[in-house]
Amino acid sequence: MPLTPEQQAEIENQRSTTRETLRAVSEGMERHLYTAIPVLDHGFVRVIDYMGDDAAICQAARVSYGKGTKSVSNDEGLIRYLMRHWHSTPFEMCEIKLHVKLPVFVARQWIRHRTANVNEYSARYSILDREFYIPERDALAAQSRTNNQGRGAALEGEEADRVLRILRDDAMRCYDHYEEMIGEDGQQGLARELARMNLPANIYTQWYWKVDLHNLLHFLRLRADAHAQYEIRVYADAICDVVADWVPFAFRAFEDYRMGGATLSATALDCLRRMLKGEAVTQETSGMSKGEWREFEGILNGPAQPGS
Amino acid sequence: MPLTPEQQAEIENQRSTTRETLRAVSEGMERHLYTAIPVLDHGFVRVIDYMGDDAAICQAARVSYGKGTKSVSNDEGLIRYLMRHWHSTPFEMCEIKLHVKLPVFVARQWIRHRTANVNEYSARYSILDREFYIPERDALAAQSRTNNQGRGAALEGEEADRVLRILRDDAMRCYDHYEEMIGEDGQQGLARELARMNLPANIYTQWYWKVDLHNLLHFLRLRADAHAQYEIRVYADAICDVVADWVPFAFRAFEDYRMGGATLSATALDCLRRMLKGEAVTQETSGMSKGEWREFEGILNGPAQPGS
Amino acid sequence: MPLTPEQQAEIENQRSTTRETLRAVSEGMERHLYTAIPVLDHGFVRVIDYMGDDAAICQAARVSYGKGTKSVSNDEGLIRYLMRHWHSTPFEMCEIKLHVKLPVFVARQWIRHRTANVNEYSARYSILDREFYIPERDALAAQSRTNNQGRGAALEGEEADRVLRILRDDAMRCYDHYEEMIGEDGQQGLARELARMNLPANIYTQWYWKVDLHNLLHFLRLRADAHAQYEIRVYADAICDVVADWVPFAFRAFEDYRMGGATLSATALDCLRRMLKGEAVTQETSGMSKGEWREFEGILNGPAQPGS
Amino acid sequence: MPLTPEQQAEIENQRSTTRETLRAVSEGMERHLYTAIPVLDHGFVRVIDYMGDDAAICQAARVSYGKGTKSVSNDEGLIRYLMRHWHSTPFEMCEIKLHVKLPVFVARQWIRHRTANVNEYSARYSILDREFYIPERDALAAQSRTNNQGRGAALEGEEADRVLRILRDDAMRCYDHYEEMIGEDGQQGLARELARMNLPANIYTQWYWKVDLHNLLHFLRLRADAHAQYEIRVYADAICDVVADWVPFAFRAFEDYRMGGATLSATALDCLRRMLKGEAVTQETSGMSKGEWREFEGILNGPAQPGS
Repeated sequence: MPLTPEQQAEIENQRSTTRETLRAVSEGMERHLYTAIPVLDHGFVRVIDYMGDDAAICQAARVSYGKGTKSVSNDEGLIRYLMRHWHSTPFEMCEIKLHVKLPVFVARQWIRHRTANVNEYSARYSILDREFYIPERDALAAQSRTNNQGRGAALEGEEADRVLRILRDDAMRCYDHYEEMIGEDGQQGLARELARMNLPANIYTQWYWKVDLHNLLHFLRLRADAHAQYEIRVYADAICDVVADWVPFAFRAFEDYRMGGATLSATALDCLRRMLKGEAVTQETSGMSKGEWREFEGILNGPAQPGS
Repeated sequence: MPLTPEQQAEIENQRSTTRETLRAVSEGMERHLYTAIPVLDHGFVRVIDYMGDDAAICQAARVSYGKGTKSVSNDEGLIRYLMRHWHSTPFEMCEIKLHVKLPVFVARQWIRHRTANVNEYSARYSILDREFYIPERDALAAQSRTNNQGRGAALEGEEADRVLRILRDDAMRCYDHYEEMIGEDGQQGLARELARMNLPANIYTQWYWKVDLHNLLHFLRLRADAHAQYEIRVYADAICDVVADWVPFAFRAFEDYRMGGATLSATALDCLRRMLKGEAVTQETSGMSKGEWREFEGILNGPAQPGS
Repeated sequence: MPLTPEQQAEIENQRSTTRETLRAVSEGMERHLYTAIPVLDHGFVRVIDYMGDDAAICQAARVSYGKGTKSVSNDEGLIRYLMRHWHSTPFEMCEIKLHVKLPVFVARQWIRHRTANVNEYSARYSILDREFYIPERDALAAQSRTNNQGRGAALEGEEADRVLRILRDDAMRCYDHYEEMIGEDGQQGLARELARMNLPANIYTQWYWKVDLHNLLHFLRLRADAHAQYEIRVYADAICDVVADWVPFAFRAFEDYRMGGATLSATALDCLRRMLKGEAVTQETSGMSKGEWREFEGILNGPAQPGS
Repeated sequence: MPLTPEQQAEIENQRSTTRETLRAVSEGMERHLYTAIPVLDHGFVRVIDYMGDDAAICQAARVSYGKGTKSVSNDEGLIRYLMRHWHSTPFEMCEIKLHVKLPVFVARQWIRHRTANVNEYSARYSILDREFYIPERDALAAQSRTNNQGRGAALEGEEADRVLRILRDDAMRCYDHYEEMIGEDGQQGLARELARMNLPANIYTQWYWKVDLHNLLHFLRLRADAHAQYEIRVYADAICDVVADWVPFAFRAFEDYRMGGATLSATALDCLRRMLKGEAVTQETSGMSKGEWREFEGILNGPAQPGS
């Protein structure tokens, strides 16, 4: 349970005060505001603020494309058109601000997405809490033998026990030493900005993260993907649920064109045309490498199962 | 008068519907929403949406700096501290979306500020209106003789008449030919994306422009400055009035530290120390070039008068 | 012929001095350095500088992915893998700096690509030359009747004559008035920053444009596309030729996966699977709108012909 | 000693091959190419590539500002002018690519500078080396009592011993367990992407970091500052030495206007004017808070001593 009683009280307080506004309001998003969605063992995602809705995307597109956009029958059709033709700027007109609590090694992946605004809790100035990510047993994946980027089956039995014991013991010991080095109140101790170097990467940090919808969808496409590391994917999945309620038309278009879609190369399209004419194309006759052919077959055989 | 009856009706409609929200609300900004602030002869600035307020800046800073920020007595003090020490990320946590109508040559300056989201009216797809910026007589500045970047005194009498006649006549003739080349409805004519090349740079365009507060203040520092071209400065001035109502603490800090402040070089600081000790420093003994010394004297003599 | 004798002499001078360097050198690119590639009637593209080559992309990828990248047999295979899986950061490790001379209405499209560095000739400080883009007769496209974004067939005969006469006459007259308003040397005239507003959008400007390879390829995908406006496409085509000589592996991968490839939606992939099993899918049974279905058929029928 | 024999051999190999180029060459930079500058106990900074030199800054400025820039007598004068008046785009026309080895907690500060290209060694795919930052005794700063952001005097004697012992022991134990969890070759073990979470923040990582000169100078202003954390400041200092050799005019202007300069608020400038007229201004009569007044006095009393 990731929320302290104080945090729960803060959320209830924030949710108890409604105010009047002339701005665009997304009812689906209002329900999410401030509420913490639990992720992993101590993490969460909270919506702090948002700007715009599906209509705001269309409004911006209509400024740009003028009469052309009026021939599209309705907002959902227009949003699908924009997504299909890679018109990114109308989606940039919506913005979201999240409060996220997450392990440091997840934060390090996340921050590579540079087109966003971030305010992270500073371990230079403040003391980190004793909270570490310890995986569930079924998330204790073994290194894949066939694929050096992914995970194989979960560890089991004593091996799993041993790993969990190591992670817990090292985290606790490192944190004990962190506290010890910092020293008690009133006593001089090692500077916080130095002591933090003893803390392992499964310690939790938190930040405010603000991003426009276009860049958020790009983030989600990469991080809610089956090939993303499980520990960041669960955050992306939680945010997907939020976005689906915030801008339902945009999210459905995103699912169809991005998450469920695939990009085929000129070579692959050529093979496809030959196959549709009845030719039995094989890897050897495809012009693709073995790796490409395997991926191409994967696309033709159906969507990748999440987690597979 | 920049607004058509349709636009006025749209604004009144948008302002007549208030809705409930749990988000942060800036009362000062709600008064501006949708209302068009006239700028130049046909231009305007309209606030379409905003995110955050002064409190949101502090909230983000407190996530980052933790207990350190609590020692600052209040929100205004904290905001001043952040501005003084160039902490930019908390200001990035506020966002504004504007609808701006502006001459193309102003738009070309404006767009150089790259950290913003833009949806511009497309002259590829749509037909531009017959609206051109024609300066007021007292804005018809002569080229400065001493300063190749600025303006001298205004042209007068017949010379001013002649310039205004040229600008008006060429604009009208070019627009007549634009319409003629495009052809009438139902008749085939030159593609719009080509015909637009005949239109001069004082024609009006419009766009949605969305930017975070940090980057907006950077824009305002450069464009509300006395050295900015008058035609973009009036837009910056109009936006300054909006920001002052939106985030009054941040705007006051911005006025003190940025707009009214000055950056002194190491050489200039050294001169200053000598002067405070009673030494009579001259350009020759200052270590500065003539240009630098003139600027240094300007700072010591007091704020530049806008428009001077 | 876009180059003045002075520019030609400058290029010859720059090309006559070779120096020694320890940096990565792309032989293909050295041949392009400084040479102006003519585009349109007065425009050009010149390579001013570059950083990196195909090997630099691999070098950066190997820092990131370590041993994983060694299993890929060679540099071209690795580059294809990176492109196929949307690994953008290794491509960001190459950089190019171009000097481009282009009509203002093309510059306005180009500048929407924000992730680049730009230094444009300033009409605030300097006087623009009397050079305007006047299309070739076969580029005088009519507005398409079926597609409000594109061009139809070229205008012909008297209609073409009339359009060309308008474009030439208005350009010359506006430029005459520009010169007249500015005044002669020694005489006070209208400030340059104001006088420029009388110049139509087919006047030429120029800039230095610096961009990394990832963002350049994104630009090329959109602007070398058959749907891009002809006047920007010819610049993109010229740059494609340069990139093909600079980073030949990366460019071939780009052609296969991006320029010649296509993204299919989940719905389209589902149709494809049904078709490969022998089902006769129609628009009515596809789950796609008419517009989507038309585009889907276009992909299955083969690559779009440039200019069609 | 941060370099392995393999790395040393690689550097020697890279430095032994000179090639011819037509590009701008900075002799000062050629001497740095590939050579590793040691930083901290195992870290380094290596120049991998660069684009441009002082002349390239002026060349880009002259495209923009045309004749205006010719009135400035020489390149150094022009560069000083550009720096003084915050013209950032000409500095963006130079680019540098560095290979940096640095502790993770330093990397986490560094990455907040978002306008750069990064390829980091991936602990998802590869195994991290057993290398940890262990501070020198005189860098073992105590937490400052008066300033919650900085460091006080160094710990001494047994307290220092104890801290060093903790840092070393925890690093070694965590790394032993990391190896143990990963398992030996041929044996299935925990996925690398999970095992890395056990590693503390003083472990070394490495990346390629590419940035333009304008953004690099902004980074250096913040990170070579006396208030920056010592462990990132030593990297910034090493890079300052490189930049001084690469673009000596730009670096000297940077030292004068940025590193050694100071920004004064409108209120501070007003006080200064009163003081220069002979008034004895005190904090009480200054209109500044106590904190601001203290900083103002610091500026008037002379440059902050690094490390103070």
